[in-house]
This record gives sequence, structure tokens and C-alpha cells, in this order.
Amino acid sequence: MGVLYGVGLGPGDPELMTLKAARLISGAGVVAYPALAGGESFARSIAAGLIPVGAEEIVMAVPMAVDRAPAQAVYDGGAARIAEVLQDGRDVVCLCEGDPFFYGSFMYLFARLSGRFDVEVVPGVTSVSACAARAGLPLVARNERFVVLPGPLSEDQLRAGIEGASSVAIMKVGRHLGKIRGVIAALGLEARAVYVERAGLAEEVILPLAEAPEAAPYFSMILVTKGADPWL
Amino acid sequence: MGVLYGVGLGPGDPELMTLKAARLISGAGVVAYPALAGGESFARSIAAGLIPVGAEEIVMAVPMAVDRAPAQAVYDGGAARIAEVLQDGRDVVCLCEGDPFFYGSFMYLFARLSGRFDVEVVPGVTSVSACAARAGLPLVARNERFVVLPGPLSEDQLRAGIEGASSVAIMKVGRHLGKIRGVIAALGLEARAVYVERAGLAEEVILPLAEAPEAAPYFSMILVTKGADPWL
Repeated sequence: MGVLYGVGLGPGDPELMTLKAARLISGAGVVAYPALAGGESFARSIAAGLIPVGAEEIVMAVPMAVDRAPAQAVYDGGAARIAEVLQDGRDVVCLCEGDPFFYGSFMYLFARLSGRFDVEVVPGVTSVSACAARAGLPLVARNERFVVLPGPLSEDQLRAGIEGASSVAIMKVGRHLGKIRGVIAALGLEARAVYVERAGLAEEVILPLAEAPEAAPYFSMILVTKGADPWL
Repeated sequence: MGVLYGVGLGPGDPELMTLKAARLISGAGVVAYPALAGGESFARSIAAGLIPVGAEEIVMAVPMAVDRAPAQAVYDGGAARIAEVLQDGRDVVCLCEGDPFFYGSFMYLFARLSGRFDVEVVPGVTSVSACAARAGLPLVARNERFVVLPGPLSEDQLRAGIEGASSVAIMKVGRHLGKIRGVIAALGLEARAVYVERAGLAEEVILPLAEAPEAAPYFSMILVTKGADPWL
């Protein structure tokens, strides 16, 4: 039976892929990846230069909708096709933006296939690390606490998370920007907050939170570093 | 003037270095890295196969002590030597375990040099991502919260951090194992906790927390995933 590789591609710059990811993709006979229904696959675009000509491609076209049933059906179908390939003795390299186990859709395939097949996960650089690097913001040192909060959380959940940590990454900002900005301002932390969009890509935006665009994309991030530590 | 590169090397397996890290190290005329005073440099060992023969090596031999002044003096000295090289128009590649801005000692050089010189940080795969990958534990999805807690925190701080998150990584376990295990058990989460040591290396250990060795090394980790989400 073949092996399913869940391969983290990093945050978008193809050079932030690991050597192991590059080796596995370059040698792949079958690749699998999610795409936006009717649109592009960001994962495939990161790996495009390495996918062998003639490799079979299993595309999971995932609809963006609040109802999760249609997306679940797409992952059911993708998992079934991947299982056929693995049973045929061939490996499958699944392309995953960022790190597969950190807000990654690979988890949905892992849940469906890890009981029956050998699965190897290759970790990748997260968007959090990439945003901090590009913004020049050290995140945590020594005994500091770090928290990652998705933007759709309630104001109370965001406030509690920010209060309990030395540094914070707020993911999936998008249309939640106003709410998040309000919470950060009420805590007196606006001057310590940075907005980052598409870190390391040509369209990168890095701004103080106060100057962030009203129309933030889904894949934007806010970093808050309280800076109590002098980093010395 | 030269550029200072703070290059994340990932969690230890040289293949988990990024393509960019490998390119920068392979072309380096000067590398800098921390080492344990009187001992090895883990960072150098990860990159060893790529450091060019004849490259100048700036070693910062950091004493492990509660008093931070001796370590600060070592970083002062390393920063001064790096500054000389940069002023001479040559680049310096600083080797950093994991990710430079995530509990990394590169922050101490960044604090000393980033105002005067161009510094580029190359993010790396964290030990958290590596441990989750090797343990087969998806960390967070959708609107879940993730927290990273250092083991030396107090019981109250650990409890509050664990209660407020869906998944938790506790770093720097070492001699704090007993205390951490007590907090996790009191929260009824021991069956959801996994102990990981040296993820991805030959000496890797992955065990249910209940079976963790009493003498845990400093660089060990505990992952707690509450598993409320079915990952479907």
C-alpha cells in the first residue's frame, strides 16, 4: 500500500518550503490539493514549479459556505480517490498551505484516512512565523505566553485571550477587523498591534493596526506584542 | 554594509530546513551561532552539511545560569563582532534552531543590531509543528484557540492557559514535568496529553503523558488537544 504524505508548503513564498517538501513533490506521481470551487488553488501555486510533468492531480474543489456539508462531501470524494491510489500501491503527496496541522484542511483528509493507511505529516512554516519575520516583531522569549486566536471569536473571547498572553496572533481577520480593532483599543494595545497581509509575497502589506485597510482579506493577520520584555 | 540574516533551521532534522535557509547557508562567508558553554551547538549541527569550507564562524558560547548577565555579555560580544563584519560590507548568516522569533536566542542579536543594520529574518518550522506532525495530532481548526505555555509558569498560569484554549503546547518541560502533569490531571485532560522528546530525530520519544519519563530533558514538549472537534 502507498503512503499518504501531508506536506506543509509554508506561507506562500516557494523558497520557504522545506527541503523535504521539495523532495517529495519533485518525486510525486500523484499530488492532491484543495482549491476554491471555481477558482485557484493557492497550495498548488506554491508548489507549481516542482510538480513533475505528467503527475496525476487530485483536486478537491471546496465551496466556501457556512453549511459544512458540501465541503465535507468534497473531502469524502477526495479521500475515496486517494484511498484508491494508495490501495494500488502508489504514494500520494497532499499539498498543504502553511503547516498541515495548524488550521489546515489536511486535517479533514487525515481524519478520513489515517486509520486505514500510513500517513506521514511534513510540518511547514506557519503564516504566524512568516508575518512576525516580515514585520520584524519577535514573538515570545523565555517564560512568555503566546496565543493564536481566530478573528471570528466573540469580543469576550478575544479580550480574554489577549489579556492572558504576552503576544498574540489573530488569524482570519477579514470582515472582523472592526471588532478586533475595538477590543485591542479598549485594552490600550493599539500602538502595539501590527496588521499583516500576504507576508513575503509581492502584494505584501504591513501597517500599524490604526492604518489597516477597512476591507481586510480573509488571509490577513494582526500581531500584538506587549513588549514587556526588553529582549536583552 | 552587509546584511544580517537570522535563519530558522527548523526543529532538528536537516531536511526540515527551508530552501531559503539552505541557499543562504550554502553561500555564507560568515556564520554565527549560539553554543552551550563548553558544549555543542545544536544549531550548527543542523546546518553542518551546508556550511562552506573556510567560512568564518562566530561562536557565542552561552552559559546556562539563572543570572542573565553572563549570557548578556556573550551576546554583547557576538553582536560587536557581527557588527564589525557587517561594517566591512560582508553578510552574516546567523543559525537559529526552530524559528528565530519563537523562543529563539536570535532575538538577543536582533535587539542589539536591528537599529543599525539591515536584518532579514527567515522563518523556520517550529518544534511545536514538528511535535504535532510526529505525534499525529492535529492542533487547531476553524475557530479554535491555540496557546503555547512555557513549563516554568506557575500552576495557576498553566491552568488558566490550558482552560482558555482548544489545544495547548507546553514547552521547556524538563524538571517541571511533575507540576505540569498535576495541573493536566486535575483538569481531567491526562488522556488527551502526549509527551514528545526530540521530534523527528533518531532519539525521538512519543508517549502518552502518563508514561512520560520522570527525567524529562529541557527540550521536551507536552501537547494537549481537547478533541472537541471531530475534524470532519
